[in-house]
Amino acid sequence: MVVTEVPKLASAVEYFFKMGVEGKRFRPTVLLLMATALNIQIPQQTSNVIGDATLIELRERQQRVAEIMEMIHVASLLHDDVLDNSETRRGIGSLNIVMGNKLSVLAGDFLLSRACVALASLNNNEVVSIISAVLEHLVTGEIMQLTTTSDQRCSMEYYMEKTYYKTASLISNSCKAIALLAGQSTQVSTLAFEYGKNLGLAFQLIDDVLDFTGTSTSLGKGSLSDIHQGIVTAPILFAIEEFPQLHEIVSRGLENPADIELALEYLGKSRGIQRTIELAKNHAVLASAAIDSFPESSDEDVLRSRRALVDLTHIVITRTK
Amino acid sequence: MVVTEVPKLASAVEYFFKMGVEGKRFRPTVLLLMATALNIQIPQQTSNVIGDATLIELRERQQRVAEIMEMIHVASLLHDDVLDNSETRRGIGSLNIVMGNKLSVLAGDFLLSRACVALASLNNNEVVSIISAVLEHLVTGEIMQLTTTSDQRCSMEYYMEKTYYKTASLISNSCKAIALLAGQSTQVSTLAFEYGKNLGLAFQLIDDVLDFTGTSTSLGKGSLSDIHQGIVTAPILFAIEEFPQLHEIVSRGLENPADIELALEYLGKSRGIQRTIELAKNHAVLASAAIDSFPESSDEDVLRSRRALVDLTHIVITRTK
Repeated sequence: MVVTEVPKLASAVEYFFKMGVEGKRFRPTVLLLMATALNIQIPQQTSNVIGDATLIELRERQQRVAEIMEMIHVASLLHDDVLDNSETRRGIGSLNIVMGNKLSVLAGDFLLSRACVALASLNNNEVVSIISAVLEHLVTGEIMQLTTTSDQRCSMEYYMEKTYYKTASLISNSCKAIALLAGQSTQVSTLAFEYGKNLGLAFQLIDDVLDFTGTSTSLGKGSLSDIHQGIVTAPILFAIEEFPQLHEIVSRGLENPADIELALEYLGKSRGIQRTIELAKNHAVLASAAIDSFPESSDEDVLRSRRALVDLTHIVITRTK
Repeated sequence: MVVTEVPKLASAVEYFFKMGVEGKRFRPTVLLLMATALNIQIPQQTSNVIGDATLIELRERQQRVAEIMEMIHVASLLHDDVLDNSETRRGIGSLNIVMGNKLSVLAGDFLLSRACVALASLNNNEVVSIISAVLEHLVTGEIMQLTTTSDQRCSMEYYMEKTYYKTASLISNSCKAIALLAGQSTQVSTLAFEYGKNLGLAFQLIDDVLDFTGTSTSLGKGSLSDIHQGIVTAPILFAIEEFPQLHEIVSRGLENPADIELALEYLGKSRGIQRTIELAKNHAVLASAAIDSFPESSDEDVLRSRRALVDLTHIVITRTK
């Protein structure tokens, strides 16, 4: 879908997609498993629910949702790199440094426009609405991060809301779209949404931990990139609960290297990392529980996909990179 | 629709909308006139065509198309300014200079996401498809401009295609969407599209002339901003037809000020300006003819709106700014 008549742009948008080694393909994997996990008891006769779609057509439409989601995700990375003036992304030079802001903005816009066209071609108003809202959430999350006040910087509620918009909305709503395309009920679609939301939140919480701990679990081996950008994440927020004196330090913005040192010191004395991992585990359990509440099925493929989705909730919280 | 919870972003996106003096409000005016011109013989009983929409609801939906189009237009301006590193836009400092690339990219994304949500809320698959394609056209046009080869630089066909994508697609497809929402036939919707396309092309051709001539019709009083950016427009392309030796000069890119001087000299000796105005007039006539082919009506409001749409085709080609 990203092939275009203009080779320069094609190479720009393929830049991220081609990084097979670094890219975990996490999101598309989740969605395609979700598709198999829910493509059951398709009411072939009651064509009002899924139109005249055969199972193969349905699968193609669900795959398109996965493609759309990945295009939106990569587009947001391209624009975020311009926003952050990032110099690296996934370990290699970010596109805005390599090819200029111009092409990053344009390639992002190109992917978004292709995503919109692909979305429209699904001819499903509810899915179009859901995925459009995701676009708005991504922007909202980015704005929340850019405009954080000192009070908001110390608020766990604000942090979780921002994390939902920036990270979990895309995967959760795509899971819901997959379920809706399969003709599933509102109840089952909500379970699919809950799986995606809780998996996404667990994923991000562990990301936040790894930014401090790196690949090992001992403090201080991470890249510390968040805190050096003044971005406060869950471990610090939990540490503030234990050491109220940290509140003052964090709320003044972490622009001073001495303040960062102090914050890391308090974090080391606190249970911040541990409590963040516990919170991630809670979300992983909720994600797993959503899958367990899916309608019964005896189909081997369906059951295997569901087990894989449950396995992913464990992988997400035990990963070290 | 652009009001948001984040004051900083609201002010960014309102930045362009608030410039009532400079902004001509040309596009929304066309669309609202088109709505009145086509809201006839509404098949209230045959609800399959326009749903259960009453005339008031229909009008609201058409107004939403105008709002969506203007949001997409402003979003593209915001991103274009980042692309061009523009320092002014509509006579005032461009947002990327005033507030940074960051906010320009984000405000553009914000407007696009709001436009997508508003579009989805129309619940009309065909309209969603049409407007999504416009997003792709805008990007395609921008890419064509950024990646022009020396052969393409001298091609009238390439120029007209790029102009359609960058300028005329938005207005023509929005006109078509207005017609489709009114429950008009494919034939009438195509006429609405043809009106918008030809009006848009005429508008841009005159823009290209004014870039050379400024407010008067004598050569050399315009801002010459296109040619100084190496962007070749219709007047130069017509001049090449008269003076083939200009082809070599233009195809090497107009990066040399001496080449620009030479090109302007040939343009002055040629009928390039005149022929561009004639081409614009031809498109204005085609636009006008599309309106004349609309289904008959004796409604005063309908007829007045159609006359206004025809009047606009004259205004577009006789304007001096």
